[in-house]
Amino acid sequence: MTENSLRKTVFQKLEHTETADRLGKIVDYLLIALIAINVGSVILETVDSVASQYVGLFNTIEVVSVAVFTLEYLARLWSCVEDPKLADAKYPRLKYAVSPLALIDLLAILPFYLTFFFIIDLRFLRVLRLLRVLKLTRYSPALSIILEVIREERHSFYAAFFILMVLLILAASGAYLVEHRVQPEKFGSIPHAMWWAMATLTTVGYGDVTPITPMGQIFGSLVAIVGIGMAALPAGILTSGLTSQLRRNREALRNQLRRALEDGIIDETEETALEDLRKNLGLSRQIALEIRQDVHDRRLEHVGAHCVHCGKPHTVPRRKI
Amino acid sequence: MTENSLRKTVFQKLEHTETADRLGKIVDYLLIALIAINVGSVILETVDSVASQYVGLFNTIEVVSVAVFTLEYLARLWSCVEDPKLADAKYPRLKYAVSPLALIDLLAILPFYLTFFFIIDLRFLRVLRLLRVLKLTRYSPALSIILEVIREERHSFYAAFFILMVLLILAASGAYLVEHRVQPEKFGSIPHAMWWAMATLTTVGYGDVTPITPMGQIFGSLVAIVGIGMAALPAGILTSGLTSQLRRNREALRNQLRRALEDGIIDETEETALEDLRKNLGLSRQIALEIRQDVHDRRLEHVGAHCVHCGKPHTVPRRKI
Amino acid sequence: MTENSLRKTVFQKLEHTETADRLGKIVDYLLIALIAINVGSVILETVDSVASQYVGLFNTIEVVSVAVFTLEYLARLWSCVEDPKLADAKYPRLKYAVSPLALIDLLAILPFYLTFFFIIDLRFLRVLRLLRVLKLTRYSPALSIILEVIREERHSFYAAFFILMVLLILAASGAYLVEHRVQPEKFGSIPHAMWWAMATLTTVGYGDVTPITPMGQIFGSLVAIVGIGMAALPAGILTSGLTSQLRRNREALRNQLRRALEDGIIDETEETALEDLRKNLGLSRQIALEIRQDVHDRRLEHVGAHCVHCGKPHTVPRRKI
Amino acid sequence: MTENSLRKTVFQKLEHTETADRLGKIVDYLLIALIAINVGSVILETVDSVASQYVGLFNTIEVVSVAVFTLEYLARLWSCVEDPKLADAKYPRLKYAVSPLALIDLLAILPFYLTFFFIIDLRFLRVLRLLRVLKLTRYSPALSIILEVIREERHSFYAAFFILMVLLILAASGAYLVEHRVQPEKFGSIPHAMWWAMATLTTVGYGDVTPITPMGQIFGSLVAIVGIGMAALPAGILTSGLTSQLRRNREALRNQLRRALEDGIIDETEETALEDLRKNLGLSRQIALEIRQDVHDRRLEHVGAHCVHCGKPHTVPRRKI
Repeated sequence: MTENSLRKTVFQKLEHTETADRLGKIVDYLLIALIAINVGSVILETVDSVASQYVGLFNTIEVVSVAVFTLEYLARLWSCVEDPKLADAKYPRLKYAVSPLALIDLLAILPFYLTFFFIIDLRFLRVLRLLRVLKLTRYSPALSIILEVIREERHSFYAAFFILMVLLILAASGAYLVEHRVQPEKFGSIPHAMWWAMATLTTVGYGDVTPITPMGQIFGSLVAIVGIGMAALPAGILTSGLTSQLRRNREALRNQLRRALEDGIIDETEETALEDLRKNLGLSRQIALEIRQDVHDRRLEHVGAHCVHCGKPHTVPRRKI
Repeated sequence: MTENSLRKTVFQKLEHTETADRLGKIVDYLLIALIAINVGSVILETVDSVASQYVGLFNTIEVVSVAVFTLEYLARLWSCVEDPKLADAKYPRLKYAVSPLALIDLLAILPFYLTFFFIIDLRFLRVLRLLRVLKLTRYSPALSIILEVIREERHSFYAAFFILMVLLILAASGAYLVEHRVQPEKFGSIPHAMWWAMATLTTVGYGDVTPITPMGQIFGSLVAIVGIGMAALPAGILTSGLTSQLRRNREALRNQLRRALEDGIIDETEETALEDLRKNLGLSRQIALEIRQDVHDRRLEHVGAHCVHCGKPHTVPRRKI
Repeated sequence: MTENSLRKTVFQKLEHTETADRLGKIVDYLLIALIAINVGSVILETVDSVASQYVGLFNTIEVVSVAVFTLEYLARLWSCVEDPKLADAKYPRLKYAVSPLALIDLLAILPFYLTFFFIIDLRFLRVLRLLRVLKLTRYSPALSIILEVIREERHSFYAAFFILMVLLILAASGAYLVEHRVQPEKFGSIPHAMWWAMATLTTVGYGDVTPITPMGQIFGSLVAIVGIGMAALPAGILTSGLTSQLRRNREALRNQLRRALEDGIIDETEETALEDLRKNLGLSRQIALEIRQDVHDRRLEHVGAHCVHCGKPHTVPRRKI
Repeated sequence: MTENSLRKTVFQKLEHTETADRLGKIVDYLLIALIAINVGSVILETVDSVASQYVGLFNTIEVVSVAVFTLEYLARLWSCVEDPKLADAKYPRLKYAVSPLALIDLLAILPFYLTFFFIIDLRFLRVLRLLRVLKLTRYSPALSIILEVIREERHSFYAAFFILMVLLILAASGAYLVEHRVQPEKFGSIPHAMWWAMATLTTVGYGDVTPITPMGQIFGSLVAIVGIGMAALPAGILTSGLTSQLRRNREALRNQLRRALEDGIIDETEETALEDLRKNLGLSRQIALEIRQDVHDRRLEHVGAHCVHCGKPHTVPRRKI
């Protein structure tokens, strides 16, 4: 009983389930600050002059961080069974442990423990700690919407990547054919020419390698034009996905509102549910208000603008949303 | 009484409330011209040969500008209580004083007065005056729509910025690992490598720092590809926001039109209100006309194409909109 | 009578009013070929070795072109009164003469005649002839839709340009403050720093000027990030405009179809009108077919799927569209 | 009979008509692997050190590949008559042979056989084999949707390309006029200046050629600004096309669902047809489920939430989709 209620509290504080929870927020901010300090110290450690001077400080930060992150990882793993989303799972802890967020948490502490058992290049290992920055993903709702859209459109992104690869091979081989005699050190083989092709197709254009023959420059111009078309692909896919997501989120809110209004009144519970849905969908108050007004207007077309019993006008309940 | 009516006039001329107000327009144009002259003179002042020659002229421009802008600031602060939007506020002047537009106005004159009390690096101070260009924001309705969309989508932009920061750190640390042995002066630490990572992720690609090892070039190519995906994020967010805004603006005009047409006739007052709404929403006349036609068509499906009383056909009132 | 019918024929051939007009098409292709030859010869004329060798050929092309273009201009000016769109105008010829297309035609021949009266730098004049390429605008319907969208969204583009100018001034002055001591020849004044600021904000990134101080590189990174946001503005405006235009065009076709179907049958005249509208709106056959299917489906909800008189199923007339 | 059934099996395995076909999948993966090995070997062959060492391996790969691809081409040509889409064609084999996919297959083997009859530059020929990468197009549904959108919007892309060409000519001629006296070797003629103009308009910005006069830099800045507008064109066209395609695909699924639900029940056959349609349209399960819920909700408004016969509530059949 006591264990269970403690576990529930830990879960609520860590996962921040209640919006008006002050302690949960403080836990959040402390963890965010620690991650930021961590990332900063790993970056600064690579500057030799700084590293030699503050070697002790950096070690302290590392040990404290790993301790806290290990504690956090274990606490999340222990309390995750309180998550209603995992209620149906046979092995809720295992299911949580292989979720992306849990794997990121594990990745943040694993390298430290591995050094006790294996001999690993320390410089590589230190940089690996930078992946701890991914732990921040947890704290932004807007970010998770963007990542969700990217995940939904992944097949389109793969296709765009495939088109890019095909264009890269064709651009590199074309440039190789045209330029390899004049610039054998830069376009001497297709793999060499790929560096130029990539810089041009992505419109980065470093300029360390450029075609110098007229034919090469004409071909290079074509590749550059294809490049701006290429850059349009991810923009198009992402925009189309975001627009569709926004439209569906508005529909979802509209449907729940319509259902809540079926009895003509939006009571306290329905208000809270609507407000929670609005936040989860990342819709602004302004948009929610417009949807409410619209649903109300359309409803009036059916039930009439005035109540048939008392003759008073129906008004839009505006309170929370 | 006199003071109040004077204050109202000053407010109307400055805030340009009436569309057909000639004096208000002249005040606008004079202020815009002064801002332009100001910005031009601050820019030219940094060219040494010009600065030494016209030192007197630049000083005169500065003194006159500060005088006019101070007067403008005080006049706006004094007359702002006439603004109907501030009618509900407890301290309307304070509320106005902390609004973005008022703060920009204050920022335009403050540095000049600060030099009397503090010793500040003059070169920095002069350049600070360039912020006066922000005063121009006030004069473009299309601009305020774009800024409004950016403001509404700010959480998405923060998320995109966060993704960029994470990618920047990962790109810089990867390039550091691969290249720091071959190019210690350019990729010697992660902060150093960030300059390259930023130029590549934003597809700017200066080319002053580029990877030269095969592994570095392969990693650099991946970063460049991620870069064009990264550039798609703000495009997607902004497009999705602008499309949604446009759709909602059309809906708003459609709803007001529907309400105005409830009695079957759009009278003079309703016409003016509709036209004002159309302008504020930044919708073109063509779009407004199409909406009007559409609302009319749908209404005919209910009331029939011909009047039941006189038998004459219903026509779309096209006059102003 | 004869003059009028000749004028009408000339108008039809030049303006290509009838889709299945073979002679009109030949006139089009000949004019397009002549413009292409012209542009090519002006470009090649700037290559000294080519210019000296083919001076006679270039002169012949020039004289013939000016002759044909002058004839074309006069023929269009003479026959324009047959244009039904100009029927309402008081001075139809004057109204046509000041239209963009007519001004481009005039601009294509005017420089030639001006050399008889004024002494003008020949090199500049020759290059001016390149503006003849604008005459090609006349021949692409998809192009005119894009230009129409750009025209409709011009206020948004002005606002985007204004934002760019403000950012340019702020970026240049910031870089000037940070870098002018270390690189006085490249960041010595704000106008000098603007060249770097522009290359960075537009993500062109030539790399001929780059910040070298740590502060300068941090500031430069911020400017580059703002730059990819800046590039999102025109993309967002244009996409939003194109999407809105496409939606409105579909609505327009849908409305005309609904009106044509009011009597239940789409006759020959209505078919032709619908097909003409579809082409003018730049909608694909596939989209038109889907709209037709949808209008038909919705109509069936009212009139029933089978004819009440003969019991046969209603089918979608698919013939032309 | 035997031949026909064998032909049908070959067709099914090659064209992968049944989704749960294991042998068809293995054939797919083997062919994809062979194409990848091929492309890799052609790329590595251009590296001299690798080429001289593994000359035998590369020849073996080439001979085996051509054998397999020839077999594949003949098998497809032989079995294509089983394709229901070609059932109406008079000469189904000929119609298949001139389809894009069949031409790519032919292009992959033709160069090999041509060397027996003609003397061709071997280096060029070897690189030509890289076009075999296009054979991969066959295997991605998301890719075919993107290519379909590009095909539908081709007129807009042509128009964008035309605008780019006009801007290129104007930019090059302007830069030539301003810079040709100071940098005669880089801006000596319009064709020379085009290399700079292209790098700037596409925002690639190599930096090997840059304007150095103040006038040239101002003009260059304008061209760069036009460049980011130019990059917005393909993004706008593609996004608008993708959004429209997505909307139409959703409508198509919605319509089929509405028709399937006309009798109130979605039976096994209808489920399978809906699921196949969903996959072909590239819609996610989530979107399909939302459409189904929405169609169901709207239907309830007509037929009531409960069955009039048994009084049980109508539920959304969720099974497969």
